[in-house]
Amino acid sequence: MTVRSFGETVAPGFNFVFEGRLLHSEQSPFQHIEVYEHEYFGRVLVLDHTIQTTLTDEFAYHELLVHPALCSLPEPRDVLIIGGGDGGTLRRVLEHGPVRAVQCEIDEAVTRVSREHLPEVSAGALDDPRAELVFDDGAAYAAAHPAEFDAVIVDSTDPVGAAAVLVSESFYRDCLKALKPGGVLVAQTGSPLYQANEFRVAVSNMSRVFDVVEPYFGIVPTYPGAYWSWTAATQGPPVSRAPMAVVRGRMSSRNLSCGYYTPELHRSLFAVPGFAPRPLPQKPGAGA
Amino acid sequence: MTVRSFGETVAPGFNFVFEGRLLHSEQSPFQHIEVYEHEYFGRVLVLDHTIQTTLTDEFAYHELLVHPALCSLPEPRDVLIIGGGDGGTLRRVLEHGPVRAVQCEIDEAVTRVSREHLPEVSAGALDDPRAELVFDDGAAYAAAHPAEFDAVIVDSTDPVGAAAVLVSESFYRDCLKALKPGGVLVAQTGSPLYQANEFRVAVSNMSRVFDVVEPYFGIVPTYPGAYWSWTAATQGPPVSRAPMAVVRGRMSSRNLSCGYYTPELHRSLFAVPGFAPRPLPQKPGAGA
Repeated sequence: MTVRSFGETVAPGFNFVFEGRLLHSEQSPFQHIEVYEHEYFGRVLVLDHTIQTTLTDEFAYHELLVHPALCSLPEPRDVLIIGGGDGGTLRRVLEHGPVRAVQCEIDEAVTRVSREHLPEVSAGALDDPRAELVFDDGAAYAAAHPAEFDAVIVDSTDPVGAAAVLVSESFYRDCLKALKPGGVLVAQTGSPLYQANEFRVAVSNMSRVFDVVEPYFGIVPTYPGAYWSWTAATQGPPVSRAPMAVVRGRMSSRNLSCGYYTPELHRSLFAVPGFAPRPLPQKPGAGA
Repeated sequence: MTVRSFGETVAPGFNFVFEGRLLHSEQSPFQHIEVYEHEYFGRVLVLDHTIQTTLTDEFAYHELLVHPALCSLPEPRDVLIIGGGDGGTLRRVLEHGPVRAVQCEIDEAVTRVSREHLPEVSAGALDDPRAELVFDDGAAYAAAHPAEFDAVIVDSTDPVGAAAVLVSESFYRDCLKALKPGGVLVAQTGSPLYQANEFRVAVSNMSRVFDVVEPYFGIVPTYPGAYWSWTAATQGPPVSRAPMAVVRGRMSSRNLSCGYYTPELHRSLFAVPGFAPRPLPQKPGAGA
């Protein structure tokens, strides 16, 4: 197999360029799916020319999507994942113990290709009896399951095409309805450097629905710009305020083994650098 | 002028590729110096094919190099900058008020080219009466000026060539000697992702000399991998422990205007992600 270049334009005149061997390519009803073998990052899943997951750094994205929110909850029992077809989010959710996890992914092909080419990402989670795999529209699923979940985790692609609805106010309203009291919504919200507008739209729309909306920040080395954001939303208390000792206790009792997330890191993730895009003000009377 | 590609190999098969117009190119006695005009990042200073400074994101690197250390000091008065020929570090040092700043840069050509092509980086600091520009070997300068400085700031290129000595134990020993009691050393220590060995060497050598050695982390979008490290070293107290209210008070009384650094961010910068390379243990009896 020949080596090909792939990657993304980060900003005008600035590209992340990867070289790898193309292992698989197909057009699903929803998107173009490719898998590459890369010398440094290992297997790479690319959807519509955007890197989703590599074997080397998937832990960064998935840990930061799942653990801050679930470690803020004393007993997460029912978790809905919207998107997340590669199973990496599901795997981290199941690490929290006696959990029922529904993974609602719109594109069955993503899960099929990930099972075949990147089984290390899900590490068996896709076949775990605690997991329920649904291949359907995640927004519709949330709307149809009121007060059922302790956490809703939005593991989406960029907000274009099938994923565009997943940053809308009405979607977040359905997520709030799908949550039990005290539940938490968390979503990846893109690059705070190069997708400032998408970040603002997502965070602002969440703020119209939830009382406490908290962006947080970290590194996913292969994502465009490497610096990434996630946002947690509750009706209070804030996810950021989970005390270090509580996080440490939960990580210990749940036997979490992490490559990125630590109890000491939890609150620091939520520190906002001066350059981060400012979302619109939260709704009146918000508690954050 | 034609558009050219420049940039760096971040990891095998992973490149940061920039496109820009070459404005200037010369070989100094120490290194190859280039200046590009880039559509998104503006003027870019490149030394030995490594991006040093861009007009758009220089604030990130320079603020994080200077402000955590100087905001941890109640009255920084004498500051030695080793390297830093573009004047961006000097500019942030002078923002701390009645400071005497010595900038000891080995390559006068860097300062000449920066004055001509990137004057926005230094913003007049290179001509400030509080600044003393020395073009000489920084390690020798530190060794020859004992107990003279409240802070020594190492704004070096990667630790190869002329800059290799700037991560040695003997250099850090000279820095400690150059500091007044209570002084602080701070240095850029490279990418914690892709220069893990260089990071370990620098931090471990510092730890043989200083009681409290604290790496911290942030984003410089155009540096290879975007995620970067700096390290602060003292004989105590730790730079990280400057209380938020104290930092806020100092930023206010010194009229600091920042694009990245904030009082709320100060302590969070020092939170260590699980994947960060571990330096060798600090010397026995260390206070950190």
